[in-house]
Amino acid sequence: MTRSASSPPHPPHGAGQEQFLTILSREEALARFQSALFPRPIPSEERSLSEALGAALADDIAAIIDVPPFDRSNVDGFAVRSADIAAASQAVPTQLRLTGETIHCGTAPARTIEAGLATVIATGGPLPRGADAVVMVEHTQPAGDGAIEVRRSAAPGQLVSYAGSDIARGEMLLRAGTVLGSREIGMLAACGIASMNVARKPRVAVLSTGDELVQPGEALRPAAVYDTNGAIVSAAIAENGGEPVFHGAFADDEARLEKAMRAALAAADMLILSGGTSKGAGDVSHRIIARLGEPGIIAHGVALKPGKPLCLAVCDGKPVIILPGFPTSAMFTFHDMIVPVLRRMAGLPPRTETLVKARVPLRIPSERGRAEFVMVSLVEAESGLIAYPTGKGSGAITSFAQADGFLRIDALADHLPAGTQADVTLFSPHLRVPDLVIIGSHCTGLDLVLEPLARAGLTTRTLAVGSLGGLAAAKRGESDLAPIHLLDEASGTYNTHYLTDGLELVPGWRRMQGIVFRRGDARFEGKSIEDAVAAALADPACLMVNRNQGAGTRILIDRLLAGARPDGYWNQPRSHNAVAAAVAQKRADWGVTIAPVAHAAGLGFIPLAEEHYDFALVSVRKDRPAVQAFLRALQSAESRAALEKAGFRPA
Amino acid sequence: MTRSASSPPHPPHGAGQEQFLTILSREEALARFQSALFPRPIPSEERSLSEALGAALADDIAAIIDVPPFDRSNVDGFAVRSADIAAASQAVPTQLRLTGETIHCGTAPARTIEAGLATVIATGGPLPRGADAVVMVEHTQPAGDGAIEVRRSAAPGQLVSYAGSDIARGEMLLRAGTVLGSREIGMLAACGIASMNVARKPRVAVLSTGDELVQPGEALRPAAVYDTNGAIVSAAIAENGGEPVFHGAFADDEARLEKAMRAALAAADMLILSGGTSKGAGDVSHRIIARLGEPGIIAHGVALKPGKPLCLAVCDGKPVIILPGFPTSAMFTFHDMIVPVLRRMAGLPPRTETLVKARVPLRIPSERGRAEFVMVSLVEAESGLIAYPTGKGSGAITSFAQADGFLRIDALADHLPAGTQADVTLFSPHLRVPDLVIIGSHCTGLDLVLEPLARAGLTTRTLAVGSLGGLAAAKRGESDLAPIHLLDEASGTYNTHYLTDGLELVPGWRRMQGIVFRRGDARFEGKSIEDAVAAALADPACLMVNRNQGAGTRILIDRLLAGARPDGYWNQPRSHNAVAAAVAQKRADWGVTIAPVAHAAGLGFIPLAEEHYDFALVSVRKDRPAVQAFLRALQSAESRAALEKAGFRPA
Repeated sequence: MTRSASSPPHPPHGAGQEQFLTILSREEALARFQSALFPRPIPSEERSLSEALGAALADDIAAIIDVPPFDRSNVDGFAVRSADIAAASQAVPTQLRLTGETIHCGTAPARTIEAGLATVIATGGPLPRGADAVVMVEHTQPAGDGAIEVRRSAAPGQLVSYAGSDIARGEMLLRAGTVLGSREIGMLAACGIASMNVARKPRVAVLSTGDELVQPGEALRPAAVYDTNGAIVSAAIAENGGEPVFHGAFADDEARLEKAMRAALAAADMLILSGGTSKGAGDVSHRIIARLGEPGIIAHGVALKPGKPLCLAVCDGKPVIILPGFPTSAMFTFHDMIVPVLRRMAGLPPRTETLVKARVPLRIPSERGRAEFVMVSLVEAESGLIAYPTGKGSGAITSFAQADGFLRIDALADHLPAGTQADVTLFSPHLRVPDLVIIGSHCTGLDLVLEPLARAGLTTRTLAVGSLGGLAAAKRGESDLAPIHLLDEASGTYNTHYLTDGLELVPGWRRMQGIVFRRGDARFEGKSIEDAVAAALADPACLMVNRNQGAGTRILIDRLLAGARPDGYWNQPRSHNAVAAAVAQKRADWGVTIAPVAHAAGLGFIPLAEEHYDFALVSVRKDRPAVQAFLRALQSAESRAALEKAGFRPA
Repeated sequence: MTRSASSPPHPPHGAGQEQFLTILSREEALARFQSALFPRPIPSEERSLSEALGAALADDIAAIIDVPPFDRSNVDGFAVRSADIAAASQAVPTQLRLTGETIHCGTAPARTIEAGLATVIATGGPLPRGADAVVMVEHTQPAGDGAIEVRRSAAPGQLVSYAGSDIARGEMLLRAGTVLGSREIGMLAACGIASMNVARKPRVAVLSTGDELVQPGEALRPAAVYDTNGAIVSAAIAENGGEPVFHGAFADDEARLEKAMRAALAAADMLILSGGTSKGAGDVSHRIIARLGEPGIIAHGVALKPGKPLCLAVCDGKPVIILPGFPTSAMFTFHDMIVPVLRRMAGLPPRTETLVKARVPLRIPSERGRAEFVMVSLVEAESGLIAYPTGKGSGAITSFAQADGFLRIDALADHLPAGTQADVTLFSPHLRVPDLVIIGSHCTGLDLVLEPLARAGLTTRTLAVGSLGGLAAAKRGESDLAPIHLLDEASGTYNTHYLTDGLELVPGWRRMQGIVFRRGDARFEGKSIEDAVAAALADPACLMVNRNQGAGTRILIDRLLAGARPDGYWNQPRSHNAVAAAVAQKRADWGVTIAPVAHAAGLGFIPLAEEHYDFALVSVRKDRPAVQAFLRALQSAESRAALEKAGFRPA
């Protein structure tokens, strides 16, 4: 975002912002980008065999020798002339005289096998002149005086691997573009090839942009966030055959950024900018790219969700890309639009994708006019795979990181109906079906109970969809357990009223709810609940933070307020953590959260009432080993101690 | 192999060799090996985030901050109190005064949003105190004098991502054992985690043993072979989470080998020996292992094919393994028996395997009493996948390297019937179905014709099963083309007589066959065919090399010999290359091969008659794009020139 000495009354990129030039379809943008870049030579470099694993061959390689290089014995035995022993049998053995030579591995035979002769030969030894077969030791007997008796006939070529029978000299061994795995390295070694030309990894410069970015490991100042894209883009470059060179994060200072971009691009084959969640940051980068070289920007704005603000450019033959700022958008567009180009520059074949069919359990709305890609987590139900959207908002890193894959909603559709059987493209080739599926409300206490399962190698998928969403999934048979904390207002009891046929209640633990405030705030410090609420309501400058409609805690808050609607009432975040963060960061002065969260945030806490965090268990899945392991873990002394230590009270 | 000053009259490891102690089943051997090694601590080391790609986490990691760390605006717009604009509409906008502040990314807001106020906020900016929603610029109008008109109402929380809504502080981020890909690295970066403990890669010392071994890149002396296992085992260790340390190849000198093994093991977590195709070499290694530490050898001899001579030991807590000498046996046992142990030591989850169903086109014989694993290549027919055994003998590196996977024949069965639907375990998760399938006789000229297809990105699978095998596969619809060179003796014509309904002949090229001999051999140099054969038959010391029954060249040889059976007649290798190698290496003095092979081996050549190498095309597959591309390539001037240059004559 550009800055001026006096802040303008309007967002600097509001009405007057630089608009996207022309929004291209995903396919059109990719086609234009590729045609501006290819064909191009793939730079290569010599690599030794021991360093070649994972590299892509730059040239075709033909076999330069026969493998084996000579007619080789496959066993320890005797080299013979098959015609000599054509009549040999157990009853009437044939006697052969030994030449006196022993053919070891690695020593060339000196003696010719003439009629009636045989030579001792080791596995791997070269067949001597005159011999055409090998007889196993087991089918012979010593006959004294340097002779043996052979008790079986042998077909010509028996137990012999002929020269070139494995690999023939001149045959095409490996084609250019082959990625060298251990098996390919074995073929090269067998032919004695110690070095080869491989495609040089494209060097990809990565710059993050944005005043708000702090590198991992540094202290997080107020209003700043950690630079996620720098690390994730660098890693994804390495995963796709590139060599990332991360230059750090740059503030939106046009002169400094231009200098950094020019230096980075000069030393690299590709430049990727990311970050700049605000449109302003993007504008600075675009202006610079327009000066970096011809032809410049190819596509700015792609009808793709997530990923619309993607910018693709080619500057003096090198690709220059601005990824969208939010991590999921950045990574999705990187994989969808940049990886094909990167792999081609790296001499690698296109990435192979695995598709599975999965049912969408809920209606997924979509924006008409853009191809929309929805990240999904997969769970297995009786009816097959179920695809849960992992979206926690466009800015969420977990939307991408915790997804198994994605599905596509056509640009012409405005939603995907519940029950749709969709094609899901997996992020990794193997779908690992988890041993235990927990869908519902999340609690950090749950991680403690799952700890022994994880140690025992059992995998768990936990999807946080809230108590009611979890109950619905359990009823549909999509999960083993639904963690819930639902207060029945009429009876004042938790959870039991919400169970239906096929579900049974497994007691979990109690979470103490109470008022959270900043230490030293005289309106709350040392007060009772009643006095604290009274003090808050009496002070017009005192700001509360509420919870969302439907949350158990919200019911408690409404009771406390008894009809009052103080400032901040409409600030309604959806989690205990968000309430604590608002108070800690002075966006609010008080709210209601649970004790462990208040303590972790270093805040004061006035206890009020316990919330029951229990589990609705799908009865028909009770006997599954992972469910039984969970139930054992829940009741174990170890889990109970861990829960208590973390501030929960096991039921 | 041990050596003594005077060679013994018998194979040194014949009747008196050290026998396998007890042959264990594969499952029993693996169970004993694992129980001698596990449980054991996994050594860990600190790794920076930028170096962590591919590493396995040593510890559970919980989120140390909320992500986002504050309530964040998702767009460029205005931070407002939703209650203030509850009645706003296009017709009746609500006017709000601006605070005069602009909240950029990275700067903490100073002003509170009181009733009737709004603040300019950038995407990613922190929501100011008092605000509970964000309004997009598009839904506002400047109203002069530091005010705006809002033309839509906003729900509480609109366009806001609450603190912790992506990742909540305290939540389990990643479990120990997770392999860090780019997505996991993104989650760690988002939480500001710059370094973490990861499992240290186990160091695996690799020694090759055998007098016959030469390292790739060195000159191949007579009777020697290149050390394939050293490179392939090292690469496979790296592919499975280990750090290979290759020590080179050692001759079978017990004292020197012991010294090397002790030094290698002391500096490593695991020791793998391979090579030693002869039983003698193995014996030396076994004797040494018995002295390296307790408990010593766990299993020596496993009822597994390939892989019987596998030896598993544990010496002072470290695994010590002797792999079978032949590359396919070594690699198969490595993957089947060693990888599970290596991955566990590396803190990695078990490798996931992909199974596919495929039909076996031919009867596969098997040895009763051993679980047998057969390497197969897969091709696609109308009826589904077909699994062709790739076996070129137990010593072949290509059996393993060119296979797509393997199938298992039970220890109790003595064969797998033709037509069996077998489970094939794939070596890599994706099965790439080739664009073009060629099954039949192989010729290096074929590689030249396929060159433009490879450049165009078309993949070809070529299986060398001989002309008759290729015709059978074509008739079963398993291939697109069958390369054949079959002489009809009666008519003296090639190939046409062998075609049946559904197949059509595509002319290929001619290969000049002739007599091959060592340059300077007066019996052949400068002679006509007739004189050369006469000279060979006249000299009792002159040794021929024949070809296998069924080869087109064999018919030619038998005609030349006109009933004579000179010494060497029963030496019947199956390829042109093997004939040239036998003559070059003086195991024979003459034979019949094709001109390009004779020239590549630096041998003399007397031309005799052309062989027709043509293609039987499966008519119903003629229109497939890859088949059309092949036919174009075959007729192209480029291919014809390349064939001629290599010594073939295009038809």
